Amino acid sequence: MLALTMGDPAGIGGEITIKAWRALRDTGPAFLLIADPDWLRRQPGAAGLSIGMPADAAAAAPMFAEALPLLALGLANQSIPGRPDRANAAAVTGSIARAVSLALDGSVRGIVTNPISKAVLQEAGFAYPGHTEYLGALVGTPGAEVMMLAGPSLRVVPVTVHVSLRRALDTLTSEAIVRVARTTRDALRRDFGIGSPRLAIAGLNPHAGEAGHMGDEETSLIGPAMQVLRAEGIDVTGPMPPDTMFTPRARSRYDAAICMYHDQALIPLKTLDMERGVNITLGLPIVRTSPDHGTAFDISGRGEADPTSLIEAIRLADRIARNRSAA
Amino acid sequence: MLALTMGDPAGIGGEITIKAWRALRDTGPAFLLIADPDWLRRQPGAAGLSIGMPADAAAAAPMFAEALPLLALGLANQSIPGRPDRANAAAVTGSIARAVSLALDGSVRGIVTNPISKAVLQEAGFAYPGHTEYLGALVGTPGAEVMMLAGPSLRVVPVTVHVSLRRALDTLTSEAIVRVARTTRDALRRDFGIGSPRLAIAGLNPHAGEAGHMGDEETSLIGPAMQVLRAEGIDVTGPMPPDTMFTPRARSRYDAAICMYHDQALIPLKTLDMERGVNITLGLPIVRTSPDHGTAFDISGRGEADPTSLIEAIRLADRIARNRSAA
Repeated sequence: MLALTMGDPAGIGGEITIKAWRALRDTGPAFLLIADPDWLRRQPGAAGLSIGMPADAAAAAPMFAEALPLLALGLANQSIPGRPDRANAAAVTGSIARAVSLALDGSVRGIVTNPISKAVLQEAGFAYPGHTEYLGALVGTPGAEVMMLAGPSLRVVPVTVHVSLRRALDTLTSEAIVRVARTTRDALRRDFGIGSPRLAIAGLNPHAGEAGHMGDEETSLIGPAMQVLRAEGIDVTGPMPPDTMFTPRARSRYDAAICMYHDQALIPLKTLDMERGVNITLGLPIVRTSPDHGTAFDISGRGEADPTSLIEAIRLADRIARNRSAA
Repeated sequence: MLALTMGDPAGIGGEITIKAWRALRDTGPAFLLIADPDWLRRQPGAAGLSIGMPADAAAAAPMFAEALPLLALGLANQSIPGRPDRANAAAVTGSIARAVSLALDGSVRGIVTNPISKAVLQEAGFAYPGHTEYLGALVGTPGAEVMMLAGPSLRVVPVTVHVSLRRALDTLTSEAIVRVARTTRDALRRDFGIGSPRLAIAGLNPHAGEAGHMGDEETSLIGPAMQVLRAEGIDVTGPMPPDTMFTPRARSRYDAAICMYHDQALIPLKTLDMERGVNITLGLPIVRTSPDHGTAFDISGRGEADPTSLIEAIRLADRIARNRSAA
């Protein structure tokens, strides 16, 4: 059993959760949703939907083929598609916190989070740069969390994430590169079943600095980090010129790319695998995945949302949980 | 008739030029090469090659089907594959200068440049950040040149190019964005025959700053530039979140993407179109294209180099020259 969070109730989370349940009810993986039942009833595609109200997570599994299992959590205000309401922020974060609790006590094998709006939550006082950082705090290991994006043809892990590009440059350190690469290596082994993970380390500058002609972070920060990693027996290649490291030939030579900033990682991932990309939080004691898209307020309520990424996120959470159990 | 430059003689330029001639000799577009004939003879694939030595560019056309036309230019030292020699820098730049002269006086309709090593040339005193900037100086319009990369599925134009990422942030201005977008709009009309060009303007920060939560360049620099462009009647959309603007659906809505830094443009282009990408210099009085790869010193001399990008560059230079003639 997996737990899905509500996400921002004005977004497409409800719609894609219903679509995912219809796609997976016969085959699994089974999941329950933590959300407001009245809100779910008003989502596109809810007509004819059976909702189950299990007494606890254990009781959700037997009903999954017949009904979408739901643990109820009430919204403060009725939600309007495309119009986020900061009054509902507590319910949004509450759904995440409850899912984390269920995972920490073993009631579910992992959590899958629907998209939230960081801007809306921050207006309501949310103090975290994003979902991933909030989860790190909830499980009691703040700073250990690492964001990976995985698609059918590429896995990327940004060292700096939800900060401006200037701040990414100002805060990038060898220590951060080492920490992220170690966590990624461990996760590729434990979560993805790759015995000898190969990591590609991106350069920061055009042409990876071209021997110091365009920036020196490759020699001052990235090279030293790679020395530390090699000394630990971690298989790293780089610093690689960022523009040529995502071609099919280059990708065939590594299991994950360690990237220096958000868009260096996200541009190739989304360009290659827009619909099927999944966000995974590495370095946590619990399994957590998420679809690789936002709340999509612009199309919310219309029934047009694509559930592919959420379905892939559910499947990947299940696979990771299996790999961890087998280890 | 087009003129091809030699490129770095230790690189793959000679090999791919021979392969391009064999691919195009029967169909055209016709070209001549400005290089050392003894060097060309030693390149992979030169066995059985007929080299023509036309008296001038006009005499090159009739021989193209039978022989690779060559205007001779001597190297200082015999070149060894994979081992660039700064003593040959003058011949490398001389080949470019001669090609530009032929284009300026109308002897050829455009030039196609083989890859050079900026690092090697700079050790020999070359004062330009790259090929493109050198061409701007040679034609007497320094600063007007703009680099476009074009593949079958995407055209990108970086506003800042061959500088470190930090320097890109420090030097990005509204004026530069406006200048590059104007030049791109004009080139899409004149060189590509697109009557009403649509430009996508990339954001700089993750999620295009997410309403100011992650950087302010979208509001302080990019937004004001877009206002100027709109006032001139230029069709611009943005600032677009960089990670989602290169998906198939997003790409279908614009003719070129104006990008804020090198890898924001080059990562999606090379990830999508590694073999077929072509570099075009916009804003020059002459037509100039180039393959979208480097000298490939690591595989030089082995006969393994792929001529696809050079062939596409030759074809595109020919198409641009035709569009300019028709205008």
